[in-house]
Amino acid sequence: MQTKILLSEDQMPRQWYNIIPDMPGQMFPVIHPGTLQPVTPDDLLPLFPMGLIEQEVSPQRWIDIPEEVLEVYKQWRPSPMYRAHQLEKALGTPAKIYYKYEGVSPAGSHKPNTAVPQAYYNKIFGTKRIASETGAGQWGSSIAMACQHFGLACTVYMVKVSYGQKPYRKSMMQLWGAEVFPSPSDRTNAGRAILAADPDNQGSLGIAISEAVEDAATHEDTRYSLGSVLNHVCLHQTIIGLEAKEQLKIAGDYPDVVIGCHGGGSNFAGIAFPFISDKANGKDVRVLAVEPASCPTLTKGVYEFDYGDTAKMAPIARMYTLGHDFMPPGIHAGGLRYHGAAPLVSQLVHEGVVETKAVHQIACFEAAVLFARTESIIPAPESSHAIRGAIDEALLAKEEGKEKTILFNLSGHGHVDMAAYDAYFNNELTDYEYPETAIKESLSHLPKVG
Amino acid sequence: MQTKILLSEDQMPRQWYNIIPDMPGQMFPVIHPGTLQPVTPDDLLPLFPMGLIEQEVSPQRWIDIPEEVLEVYKQWRPSPMYRAHQLEKALGTPAKIYYKYEGVSPAGSHKPNTAVPQAYYNKIFGTKRIASETGAGQWGSSIAMACQHFGLACTVYMVKVSYGQKPYRKSMMQLWGAEVFPSPSDRTNAGRAILAADPDNQGSLGIAISEAVEDAATHEDTRYSLGSVLNHVCLHQTIIGLEAKEQLKIAGDYPDVVIGCHGGGSNFAGIAFPFISDKANGKDVRVLAVEPASCPTLTKGVYEFDYGDTAKMAPIARMYTLGHDFMPPGIHAGGLRYHGAAPLVSQLVHEGVVETKAVHQIACFEAAVLFARTESIIPAPESSHAIRGAIDEALLAKEEGKEKTILFNLSGHGHVDMAAYDAYFNNELTDYEYPETAIKESLSHLPKVG
Repeated sequence: MQTKILLSEDQMPRQWYNIIPDMPGQMFPVIHPGTLQPVTPDDLLPLFPMGLIEQEVSPQRWIDIPEEVLEVYKQWRPSPMYRAHQLEKALGTPAKIYYKYEGVSPAGSHKPNTAVPQAYYNKIFGTKRIASETGAGQWGSSIAMACQHFGLACTVYMVKVSYGQKPYRKSMMQLWGAEVFPSPSDRTNAGRAILAADPDNQGSLGIAISEAVEDAATHEDTRYSLGSVLNHVCLHQTIIGLEAKEQLKIAGDYPDVVIGCHGGGSNFAGIAFPFISDKANGKDVRVLAVEPASCPTLTKGVYEFDYGDTAKMAPIARMYTLGHDFMPPGIHAGGLRYHGAAPLVSQLVHEGVVETKAVHQIACFEAAVLFARTESIIPAPESSHAIRGAIDEALLAKEEGKEKTILFNLSGHGHVDMAAYDAYFNNELTDYEYPETAIKESLSHLPKVG
Repeated sequence: MQTKILLSEDQMPRQWYNIIPDMPGQMFPVIHPGTLQPVTPDDLLPLFPMGLIEQEVSPQRWIDIPEEVLEVYKQWRPSPMYRAHQLEKALGTPAKIYYKYEGVSPAGSHKPNTAVPQAYYNKIFGTKRIASETGAGQWGSSIAMACQHFGLACTVYMVKVSYGQKPYRKSMMQLWGAEVFPSPSDRTNAGRAILAADPDNQGSLGIAISEAVEDAATHEDTRYSLGSVLNHVCLHQTIIGLEAKEQLKIAGDYPDVVIGCHGGGSNFAGIAFPFISDKANGKDVRVLAVEPASCPTLTKGVYEFDYGDTAKMAPIARMYTLGHDFMPPGIHAGGLRYHGAAPLVSQLVHEGVVETKAVHQIACFEAAVLFARTESIIPAPESSHAIRGAIDEALLAKEEGKEKTILFNLSGHGHVDMAAYDAYFNNELTDYEYPETAIKESLSHLPKVG
């Protein structure tokens, strides 16, 4: 049986861990998409409240979590950690497998960890409405929930193909009071231009970001919110890893390898950064980001400056990228279909601190089914990438006859994603080939910076 | 903000509360559907393992929870209790509202509280396979999960209309290793007879029960499992109310009224029975069962002997019933569409210990939306009946200017039920009239007992 390791509310961290002062190698500035010059805090004010802009560039290692945010966190935090005894037994591995479970939030994933502080800093800054985008809907539902809590209006641009295919997540956003538009929409210049050229355009995350950014930039009382990639988003998610460290202390253990799935990078950063700080202090811990083979940003992308969005309205950052107009295949882990990666994670990969691995979706669903049948919790398709990574490490330990302690982040539950499991059981899933030609094409469109 | 009240694992109850020795008035025997004589334990052995048969008739007030069951409970128990400060504020009520949240289980509802011990007692009895039925799928997924844990095979007969409309719950059952058949099926005499008369029959819970009972009765290694109604099911669910009492002690509070939604009666029994025992000891606490107006078993049914299923294969019990062939309208709270009620709850209603109330589904969804927008958690449509009941009590307290402490059971989350919210937001829901003619007709088919 599993062992559950709990922290009391008193043991919940009161500060987030900011990795910026501990970064190895050279950090690159974020570039303004219009001027192609480094952005200033003032450039960002139409998009973000000052509290978040400060966090984006803060040199402080520890940043206090506001009391109002702690109060909301306490609804579901500290989140549980489990030792996966049943999974270990099924694998016949000498490895110990621990997982941190973020599916206990009301939205069912780790996303509220940053949605809540983002809504809070906007609230105290005077923002009346937040505009954001969502792909499969995990982020959109989380920001809707957070805005509802702090009394902010919320507008979500939802990738059109998901708007049609995933009505449940749309309903969650509406239930939490957000207005949701299929993107591309006729509400923005970016959306109208795309629709004029292609009325049947089914949308992409890059296009939806363009619409949300434009909406925020063109309305005085509105700010933009992003659910991953940015430094302050990674910062907020570090509560996952900080709690995990305390929980492993209770178990009297420490990981040999820490694993997270990787899309934009925030849940990976959340579990990994607090352990990377130990690495700098001499601890021998590996950190592994697992991404989909069909959207192989970290394993097949380039470390270059690129736009965060398709319409080139979002800031340019140095990151691993497949090109801002790369359109990934329609895998079921919708939350991992992003052309870029968090600049902080990208730099850590570039510097050799973070290992990377790409896996195919059918192997991920196999891992998810084994997990559900041993540990009972149904994983989100995104999280199944981390499970695949953990199982592979455990099987390697078995092969090598080595003891090993594995920690991974189970970033969300899959109750809203059962259609994906249905497709798996009906043998309807495809393992997309590495989309080499498409990536080569999109990589030829990178901006020329510096 | 909410206040969360947690128990440690050490504080989790080690015994279930059996209300049988404390029942007021006359208890009636369960009747064999074939002989129309009281059933003996031996009559029940083809259907249930001895451990559960003993619990069904036990005169012991406290029954030890087996260590193996406690171990599984600990994955999600003790479940949290919340004080609904935000909801209270939105209502402007002087009442204090507490809720116990059972959506934290891997299946997302209270159903695993009994699925786990049922699978366990079958396991130690030597059962190899469990046959059961499910309507909307909450129970089917829970028994599948529990069977998976204890290494039992599991066959679920799922009401055909739900099998088609709710593929997500079907996928959950498959994910947890169960085989799922749309009912009526051609696997049983009961199913074949119905299909012969009506090849397009869309099924009902009563028919699915008939199929599962027949499957169990005709296979030596197979036993039957029911997710509600029976005494031992109510017994297992009392862990909800026992924990709630401890949590309210921590809050320094005691309820004036305890509220649960009511379908078959198990989640209501779970939250209410431990408080009813206080009532017998002089505590002034009301207990209120809230049911759908379209399936008004407790408020419009009769307290008579009736079959538990449509094909008259299940035992006959004295209970509130709308008639075993009553077909309730297709409301979205699928878990509350049962013609009968737990005999224990029925007797308590008959003796005036339990109050009852019927509410329409649109008013329930209004309550659920207000709840989600204040407390962040998305309720299952079934649970929304309890919320409606609690809100009405809180509004009454406001009207009367009275302080009052309200406790209700939030039996499950609604992440798998977002289509119902979609229908609500799209104004597609109907408040069915009280189906008087249909009930009159079905009540004319009651068996003649004694």
